[in-house]
Amino acid sequence: MNSLESEGVQQFLRDYADCLDQDRLEEWPEFFAEDGCYLVLSRENLALALPAPIIYHYSKGMLIDRVTAIRDALTYEPVYTRHIISNATVKQSAPGGCTARSNYSIYQTTLEGRTRLFGVGEYQDEIVLSANGPRFAKRTVIVDTFAIHNLLAVPL
Amino acid sequence: MNSLESEGVQQFLRDYADCLDQDRLEEWPEFFAEDGCYLVLSRENLALALPAPIIYHYSKGMLIDRVTAIRDALTYEPVYTRHIISNATVKQSAPGGCTARSNYSIYQTTLEGRTRLFGVGEYQDEIVLSANGPRFAKRTVIVDTFAIHNLLAVPL
Amino acid sequence: MNSLESEGVQQFLRDYADCLDQDRLEEWPEFFAEDGCYLVLSRENLALALPAPIIYHYSKGMLIDRVTAIRDALTYEPVYTRHIISNATVKQSAPGGCTARSNYSIYQTTLEGRTRLFGVGEYQDEIVLSANGPRFAKRTVIVDTFAIHNLLAVPL
Repeated sequence: MNSLESEGVQQFLRDYADCLDQDRLEEWPEFFAEDGCYLVLSRENLALALPAPIIYHYSKGMLIDRVTAIRDALTYEPVYTRHIISNATVKQSAPGGCTARSNYSIYQTTLEGRTRLFGVGEYQDEIVLSANGPRFAKRTVIVDTFAIHNLLAVPL
Repeated sequence: MNSLESEGVQQFLRDYADCLDQDRLEEWPEFFAEDGCYLVLSRENLALALPAPIIYHYSKGMLIDRVTAIRDALTYEPVYTRHIISNATVKQSAPGGCTARSNYSIYQTTLEGRTRLFGVGEYQDEIVLSANGPRFAKRTVIVDTFAIHNLLAVPL
Repeated sequence: MNSLESEGVQQFLRDYADCLDQDRLEEWPEFFAEDGCYLVLSRENLALALPAPIIYHYSKGMLIDRVTAIRDALTYEPVYTRHIISNATVKQSAPGGCTARSNYSIYQTTLEGRTRLFGVGEYQDEIVLSANGPRFAKRTVIVDTFAIHNLLAVPL
């Protein structure tokens, strides 16, 4: 994997965070391959080798359904989101593919301008390099923080 | 924009944060072009298309005045500042210029060693590449967190 | 220092954080040269030119002893750790060596999934580029946050 491809993947990881921070939810499924998976696991379950996911979507169609549900059905306190991403490491796994891991801390701010830490954790990614750019074959979110009330409402 | 220029801009963004964290306020105006602008906007006002800035300085002279005011006139609790910058994306806009955006979280620590989150938000930048290195033609700080008591006292 | 070497050092800084986050403490001394130093200083003492370190280990053997003490002797609440590293700047200092600085914010999460900010601060590093890769000749941790109860228990 040359440095240009590696930088392209790093930019892809940043674009994903920006998409969510800017509430462009409708674009979120586009970061995934057609049969891409999105999983959320608690770190404690992972450590105990109990990898029952909190959330498991295994196709782009399920992600699109999720966005529709959020936009149409769910009601929750409106907040602004801010992702801080660090420690991104990208490694080639096979021709046309790579793995990545990175840490996140996510903040939510109410409309009154009060900010709280929403949670910290880790992304573990399997990425395919398609003609249209990188796409997630599998994005696993390991959440350290799971004592949070609206975890299921928003993509991480 | 080649990768060397891009890395130079990324370093410039880091140097800005380090300057503020190290309380070298007198150097802060030097990050701006002579007619450079420094704006602080609340995210809520931006979302409502009410872009009335909280702060608007439109020349390096105004920034120098600001530093003088902070050093000579303002009294506030002394704190140490720490900037965490992430998601920095740099794009060429025109020959000799580029745009950038990045996220920040800023912490303040009292002299007793107690740390609080000061705020999170985003930088949106217009940068000129001068003979002396990059300079801000316009740095806009979008603050998510505005329920804070000493926002006006310190540059972000 | 070419960009490949610089990226190698940046990766080394990320690997250090990952090692601690993944509780691979036994590997922690391996990031240091045989006569490598590990110091923890409070930012306040540094500002007052009172550089009495909170912690000062000046050989890899002392670091190994430290790990043994943590594993065998200390008892403290088990937590998950998460490092957010940013603003990493790497500069060549001499042939075969470089200096680096970076900011950190560290979070701890209890087994119940509740997260608290453990502290923020800065790394100041002297690094040697050995045949086996980069190693710390000296890693100084400047802690902004020192009003914390278990600072001595874990490497930062």
